[in-house]
Amino acid sequence: MKKNILLTIAYDGTNYFGWQKQKDMNLPTIQGEMEKACSRLFKQEIECIGASRTDRGVHALGQRASITINSTIPTEKIPLAVHSYLSKDIVVIKAQEVSEDFHPRFDCVKKTYEYKIYNEVIQNPLFRNYSEFIHKKLDILTMQEAATQFIGTYDFKAFCAAGSSVKTTIRTIFDCNVKKENEFIIIQVTGDGFLYNMVRILSGTLIYAGLGKIKPNEIVPIIQSKDRTKAGKTAGAQGLLLKNIEYEMIENCLKV
Amino acid sequence: MKKNILLTIAYDGTNYFGWQKQKDMNLPTIQGEMEKACSRLFKQEIECIGASRTDRGVHALGQRASITINSTIPTEKIPLAVHSYLSKDIVVIKAQEVSEDFHPRFDCVKKTYEYKIYNEVIQNPLFRNYSEFIHKKLDILTMQEAATQFIGTYDFKAFCAAGSSVKTTIRTIFDCNVKKENEFIIIQVTGDGFLYNMVRILSGTLIYAGLGKIKPNEIVPIIQSKDRTKAGKTAGAQGLLLKNIEYEMIENCLKV
Repeated sequence: MKKNILLTIAYDGTNYFGWQKQKDMNLPTIQGEMEKACSRLFKQEIECIGASRTDRGVHALGQRASITINSTIPTEKIPLAVHSYLSKDIVVIKAQEVSEDFHPRFDCVKKTYEYKIYNEVIQNPLFRNYSEFIHKKLDILTMQEAATQFIGTYDFKAFCAAGSSVKTTIRTIFDCNVKKENEFIIIQVTGDGFLYNMVRILSGTLIYAGLGKIKPNEIVPIIQSKDRTKAGKTAGAQGLLLKNIEYEMIENCLKV
Repeated sequence: MKKNILLTIAYDGTNYFGWQKQKDMNLPTIQGEMEKACSRLFKQEIECIGASRTDRGVHALGQRASITINSTIPTEKIPLAVHSYLSKDIVVIKAQEVSEDFHPRFDCVKKTYEYKIYNEVIQNPLFRNYSEFIHKKLDILTMQEAATQFIGTYDFKAFCAAGSSVKTTIRTIFDCNVKKENEFIIIQVTGDGFLYNMVRILSGTLIYAGLGKIKPNEIVPIIQSKDRTKAGKTAGAQGLLLKNIEYEMIENCLKV
């Protein structure tokens, strides 16, 4: 009997060309590795549909992806079973059976990303692949004030990298906050979805605010300009972490 | 004029065969990379004498090493100058001129290591190279009690890997403590020096204590047995971090 399974996946994106399979099959991707591992485990060709197409070097603790399988392996045993077919930088955290028509991308209602900045005078080599290094002191209060300006429903065209083809560039940001945690400054942003490079451009803009290059009250005008050149630089991929993806009443989709 | 320079070095040991140069020059080591970088920068053959021979996969935030140079580059500019000859996983944090007879290993009076354990049910791929993963819940109070038993001057032969040739296996541990920090359990140990694999065997023994396999009051008898087989397993190299190396009155050795 066919089952639709929703997986929660964590990965270190350092050594991958992002989530999505590449035309050049020699370039390692998370989706590619997941499909290989699942196909070997279930002895059938498996397609792994991700909720978010994370870029090269971006990490995840809460990526979601679905697979349709024909298997007698109990759902709760899948994470451990698939483990032996994956390298150590990809971990399936959870597996849940969902209804046949469940789609990890279209049914998603909220995504949360975290952007990590290492803000010290000298780079720490242990954090180089997991944070953006900014050696100039960032003003966290200014960043916090600027962050709140992003909350709301806007056309975020100014925060979308060129070359993306989406129907609409309108998105809703439910929350955007900045906190200090030891030597790190962490930006956390939750929205109904994000445009191509949107979180990295938003983070780069908040870094500009922290450096005094942009004032908090300039954020809304930048959004309204719909002009990419007005926003900050795209912050490095290695600082970005896909933290969580939420579904409305996932209980309704879960098969008991 | 010849100058003796003490460097403070941080590195991610993941991709190196430890600190010490290998006979097979194709195996990358921190010392090898440092000597190559310094030799290119100063345009002369440089020997880089380290304070601690960290193992393959072990990290450092406060390794120390000395170089003797003939150069007009101001000492405080050396970290930035050498930076461009090193890959991103090795960073020279500081450079200080010291007296001619200063030796980073023989003059050292205290070393501090940190051992990081990721103690959750499921491995987090972002921490796999920087911590030991223990999925069974560790009892931190028992580990804390056991840790204090290591403090003192003892013959630590039971905590020394075979194949090491040292004059004496007597060492003094000044402090040994265990703390919880978010999802990590961190062992910190300070001593006048450590035997081969000593911190990793000590950490493995504290993990056994946390799992209930060894009682805190068994630690001293294990030390007294001088029998390696009585202590715990050698914990993984990736959890170990050389944090700090101290010199007595380094000010006296510093040239003004």
